[in-house]
Amino acid sequence: MGDESKKNWVLMVTAQSPTNIAVIKYWGKRDETLILPVNDSISVTLDPEHLCTTTTVAVSPSFNKDLMWLNGKEFSLAGARYQRCLSEIRGRASDFEDEEKGICIKKGDWEKLNVHIASYNNFPTAAGLASSAAGFACLVFALAKLMNVKEDCGTLSAIARQGSGSACRSLYGGFVKWDMGKDLSGNDSVAVQLADEAHWDDLVIIIAVVSSRQKETSSTAGMRDSVETSPLLSYRSKEVVPKRIVQMEEAIKTRDFPTFSKLACTDSNQFHAVCLDTRPPIFYMNDTSHRIISYMEKWNRFEVTPQVAYTFDAGPNAVLIAPNRKVATLLLQKLLFYFPPTPDTELNSYVIGDKSILKDAGIESMKDVDSLPLPSELKDSIPPQRQKGDISYFICTRPGRGPVVLADETQALLHPKTGLPK
Amino acid sequence: MGDESKKNWVLMVTAQSPTNIAVIKYWGKRDETLILPVNDSISVTLDPEHLCTTTTVAVSPSFNKDLMWLNGKEFSLAGARYQRCLSEIRGRASDFEDEEKGICIKKGDWEKLNVHIASYNNFPTAAGLASSAAGFACLVFALAKLMNVKEDCGTLSAIARQGSGSACRSLYGGFVKWDMGKDLSGNDSVAVQLADEAHWDDLVIIIAVVSSRQKETSSTAGMRDSVETSPLLSYRSKEVVPKRIVQMEEAIKTRDFPTFSKLACTDSNQFHAVCLDTRPPIFYMNDTSHRIISYMEKWNRFEVTPQVAYTFDAGPNAVLIAPNRKVATLLLQKLLFYFPPTPDTELNSYVIGDKSILKDAGIESMKDVDSLPLPSELKDSIPPQRQKGDISYFICTRPGRGPVVLADETQALLHPKTGLPK
Repeated sequence: MGDESKKNWVLMVTAQSPTNIAVIKYWGKRDETLILPVNDSISVTLDPEHLCTTTTVAVSPSFNKDLMWLNGKEFSLAGARYQRCLSEIRGRASDFEDEEKGICIKKGDWEKLNVHIASYNNFPTAAGLASSAAGFACLVFALAKLMNVKEDCGTLSAIARQGSGSACRSLYGGFVKWDMGKDLSGNDSVAVQLADEAHWDDLVIIIAVVSSRQKETSSTAGMRDSVETSPLLSYRSKEVVPKRIVQMEEAIKTRDFPTFSKLACTDSNQFHAVCLDTRPPIFYMNDTSHRIISYMEKWNRFEVTPQVAYTFDAGPNAVLIAPNRKVATLLLQKLLFYFPPTPDTELNSYVIGDKSILKDAGIESMKDVDSLPLPSELKDSIPPQRQKGDISYFICTRPGRGPVVLADETQALLHPKTGLPK
Repeated sequence: MGDESKKNWVLMVTAQSPTNIAVIKYWGKRDETLILPVNDSISVTLDPEHLCTTTTVAVSPSFNKDLMWLNGKEFSLAGARYQRCLSEIRGRASDFEDEEKGICIKKGDWEKLNVHIASYNNFPTAAGLASSAAGFACLVFALAKLMNVKEDCGTLSAIARQGSGSACRSLYGGFVKWDMGKDLSGNDSVAVQLADEAHWDDLVIIIAVVSSRQKETSSTAGMRDSVETSPLLSYRSKEVVPKRIVQMEEAIKTRDFPTFSKLACTDSNQFHAVCLDTRPPIFYMNDTSHRIISYMEKWNRFEVTPQVAYTFDAGPNAVLIAPNRKVATLLLQKLLFYFPPTPDTELNSYVIGDKSILKDAGIESMKDVDSLPLPSELKDSIPPQRQKGDISYFICTRPGRGPVVLADETQALLHPKTGLPK
């Protein structure tokens, strides 16, 4: 680095990455260190406008050690997963030169430069909305841009995978497959884009964030227990999932919502079945999750062709997918009928994200919620109790794009001069 | 029948049959009509002192049609399952003669005599405690005694099986296997006793009757859906259950509680996993059931060797099995700590059945419940909320005997002269 090391320059990149929701589930690793899965999985990338991680990464000769801040609080980088992502990216760094700023970094110099990382989720981290997927995807993507890594997105996905398995699927927008691969090295265990977000842009996604008292089993620990103790998991991964992957790829390709819905729902349920078959059993869904499923199943049966798909990750929150805005409007009405907010809740904070669906549904006040009609599929049965407080809030969103660099410096989370959090 | 048909005699038999709880589960029929299962199952017969059906069956030339009363209310016998049990028994009836009363019934005459049946459960029918198992076992056993059927208990179990699958296992006390059989006729799909109740008489059983708002899927409909839609069920029945049956038989033979507990818990969880893997998914356990499992698993892990086994049938109620009275006393203390009764509940109606365990636990009043110590396995964690109202009541019981005839006429449910309910 020579002269430059004496200068107080800070080089930084800010990126934004989406989260994703699996519609054919990843559950179980065949290699714990490299994070290699026991089966392929398929996900939908969610619009970063509503759910994303923003990460600024910076290097400077003035930084004494690698440091990270998550949502404003210092966060240890000592974990093996962070270390692995950092070293994988540093090992692939290329020469970089910015004559104007007087910065010249040779390939081998990157190893000697410390990084500062600041990361921020635009949604509650604790809500169980796959923040680690968006987080590791964003970290790897931002570092790769900073360090002038020339490898393609697939290779970056294999690095992000080593941070958090499902993070690899957040390297692309739209519809993404994580190919489990065969190599011991894990180099072929990468994400591939099946279709971009424009391919099927009618889809509307509503996330029901479910209130929960229970502490959840971490997915890392849960997966390990399932691999070691569930007799059903290996059958699922070897015999059931491969067929579903083929069918789901075709359903996405042809925008076949009934098949998409059937596969997403049954695969979500089978993943939770495997959790239950684990010793000790793992419960991610609670009574509210079960009620949501029952209501959606009832609606789907009533309408003959499926109106909605549901899927649940390692937590009680429901991700509901409607084929278009018209059905999504009905869906939101039904959800607000079954799960009205508590009296002290503002409608504006009970339905967040794309609020235009709320408008389409003709709901502008709590009065409108109170006077929602009985869902038609209930006409012949006793209406259920309209339980308040079981849902924290709803997020309306849609399929979205993959990671991008935010060129606007005002969006950076680190100060351009000091490299410290703003 | 000749002369006798003019007389107004009533011939009756009263029997009592136990219910049973499967520890290797039956879920799925390969033949819906004959009720032939997709795998073997193993159960423990519960003491009829606390949970049983009493049935009186009677014939008389004065009866105009077959009639039944269940818990005092008239109940239709038109169902195929009742008809099948009736005709199977009538077809095996033998000559009967009682010179004193002037009754002489030839083999072929039984078909022409109408029956009156009165049946009574000494526990709430709606509580989801396998009342149909005890009910059909009792009906078949009582009819067989009445009609002088000479076939052995195994044959009777195959008849009871056609009323309700798990009823076949209630034809014996103690520990019972239902052999799935191979014949298309179902004649070899019978129950066999593995050991009587005296073989392992240390076991104590506590049933937690869980409060539930949800209407449950009937097990007949649920099984059918699972057979038709769950990819995991056929794997379970072909690959998993046969091994567990061998292990469970050995565990019972050797009174190996740790193995018994491990198998019972994992098999219960796998049955519920298959329910979840069904389309639409079936949820029998609720949040309270999940909490019971979590507490029991925590206790078992804390103590290194399993202290308790849990198993759940097609409903939210937990059946908990302790290896001896000492552990059962601890178990009851823990259960009352985690699930205290609501203030308006009498302790006397909150713990029913064998109340001597409550005495051993030193609990005589609600004050004693309030001052129960923190369970030792919680010492290092935040104590959970002591939620009231999640459990309706507990039943303390033990393994028990098979069906018996009650010779004492005062216990008959039908009037000896009229053949009508008392």
